[in-house]
Amino acid sequence: MSRNSRNRLGEFELIAQLFAPLATSRAALGLRDDVALLRAPNGRELVLTTDAIVEAVHFLPNDPPRSVAQKALRANLSDLAAKGADPIGYLMAIAIPSRVSTRWLNAFCAGLRADQKTYAISLLGGDTTRIAGPLTVAITMIGSVPRKKALRREGARPGDLVFVSGTIGDAGCGLELLKTKRRGPQFLIKRFRVPQPRLTLGRALRGLATSSIDVSDGLLADLGHIAEVSGVRIAMRADEVPLSSGVREIWGHGRLAVIRAATAGDDYEVAFTCRPESARKVREAALWAKTRITEIGVVERGKGVELLDARGKAIRTGRRGYTHF
Amino acid sequence: MSRNSRNRLGEFELIAQLFAPLATSRAALGLRDDVALLRAPNGRELVLTTDAIVEAVHFLPNDPPRSVAQKALRANLSDLAAKGADPIGYLMAIAIPSRVSTRWLNAFCAGLRADQKTYAISLLGGDTTRIAGPLTVAITMIGSVPRKKALRREGARPGDLVFVSGTIGDAGCGLELLKTKRRGPQFLIKRFRVPQPRLTLGRALRGLATSSIDVSDGLLADLGHIAEVSGVRIAMRADEVPLSSGVREIWGHGRLAVIRAATAGDDYEVAFTCRPESARKVREAALWAKTRITEIGVVERGKGVELLDARGKAIRTGRRGYTHF
Repeated sequence: MSRNSRNRLGEFELIAQLFAPLATSRAALGLRDDVALLRAPNGRELVLTTDAIVEAVHFLPNDPPRSVAQKALRANLSDLAAKGADPIGYLMAIAIPSRVSTRWLNAFCAGLRADQKTYAISLLGGDTTRIAGPLTVAITMIGSVPRKKALRREGARPGDLVFVSGTIGDAGCGLELLKTKRRGPQFLIKRFRVPQPRLTLGRALRGLATSSIDVSDGLLADLGHIAEVSGVRIAMRADEVPLSSGVREIWGHGRLAVIRAATAGDDYEVAFTCRPESARKVREAALWAKTRITEIGVVERGKGVELLDARGKAIRTGRRGYTHF
Repeated sequence: MSRNSRNRLGEFELIAQLFAPLATSRAALGLRDDVALLRAPNGRELVLTTDAIVEAVHFLPNDPPRSVAQKALRANLSDLAAKGADPIGYLMAIAIPSRVSTRWLNAFCAGLRADQKTYAISLLGGDTTRIAGPLTVAITMIGSVPRKKALRREGARPGDLVFVSGTIGDAGCGLELLKTKRRGPQFLIKRFRVPQPRLTLGRALRGLATSSIDVSDGLLADLGHIAEVSGVRIAMRADEVPLSSGVREIWGHGRLAVIRAATAGDDYEVAFTCRPESARKVREAALWAKTRITEIGVVERGKGVELLDARGKAIRTGRRGYTHF
């Protein structure tokens, strides 16, 4: 790796020294061409998703470069997880302000490299440009899924049970700690910076979940997407929303903590529905995937999402979710 | 379309009102999901490429929104053209500063819509985020090509002839007119704002061209990529570089005009090589594609690219190309 300052590292050197070694798949043509050439594995279809992360919107200027890279990849991997897809690789368009050093970019690429290994993916193509503004990383992630087996947002039916993986609100709580410089469990900050896409769970839910979504805009907002696209109502029990001990420590044990958690962003958990008769198999699948899941509600006729108290009364929540817009 | 100010149009409204109508392919799932589902047509492989355009780097703040959209798509379509690929659709991650109005975005989407029709492509997926900085549009374009028929940068062999489509330097000259506010042929400005990807020509060159690249960084720099990846030297005749009457009007008839043209960016023409015995078929293919091509040099043993004068002497050119970095 070069020790030149970034100003002396032009676009082609950047690509050759930093990015080309990440193009481990044959499809990437070693980044020596403009394009990637790809065939879908037999009997499968490709799943494509794009998500950009922007400095000061999705990550903080002082976040470690390694975790910025991981968050960029994992936000996209989480979309694949919610579809039950297996990742293949990604294309990256990165806009780099001149103040970013080669050292920073090296650490960023180390984060990409680590996650490429973790998730068995390859850089397939890229574009590097300068920007007089915030660092911006746009990733297009490509995966595959057996034909007609992709989990979708539509498909939830009245009577279905609603589940969510992991715990909710950790990342939002971690972001608050970072912004207010308040002390708190490091676990929460890690959850904001390095999401854990639930790929193994998603894969295990193929043929079991009736609908599925990754929770990135807030649990209430994302269940709202399922409700809207499926044409149903979702009733969620506030007491069942899984909160970590860290969130309890910072946001307390009251109802407000649940509302804050269910409207915070960046969870990158999977929320899904299934027929009641599939519940046992779903729980087995989660055990197999070593991923905690919690039953949090039911699907009903109607529309929208409601957060209910212990007596079944609707709780007013104000805003629905966290918007990156 | 809404006449609300952009500030009142949230992310979901933007997607529903402006972007969802652009998702005309079934694969896009109506943008009602996070992902696109895609199968490669029978006997074909997919070609993927990504290119971002950033305000003040690739387009000017006052450029018409319609042409900004077209440039974002066409820069990517040009990559497909150089591979001989047929476009299918695209994913778009757009980062929008708050000063951008809904009116601007409407016109931007009208540009996308027009080009979707021209090139028979669909929006397949997207991501919308805000940015405290320049408007940034990252496109991942997907096409397909018959298996093993993609044109590549590697493959040029000593003895091959070198061709380029269209005329060179128009866009760079147009950018200069815009920046210096000098009067000149509007054609040059149009060439900067709305490239013409040579898709029909690229398709016709399948099986004929031994190597191919789209000219976006400057003719000399891009032929340099072919030379490097193919392990050959390219000797280009300065007098043969095709310059438009507009470029002659602004940059004159001397050698400097050729150097400026061959090192300017944003041409989005196709440069390619072929065996001498294929030259007749190549010229027929170009006629069929209604695209002007010019023979500009030969491939030799060695490395690098050389611009030669009428006596075969190398011309010093200084910089090699235009870098967006």
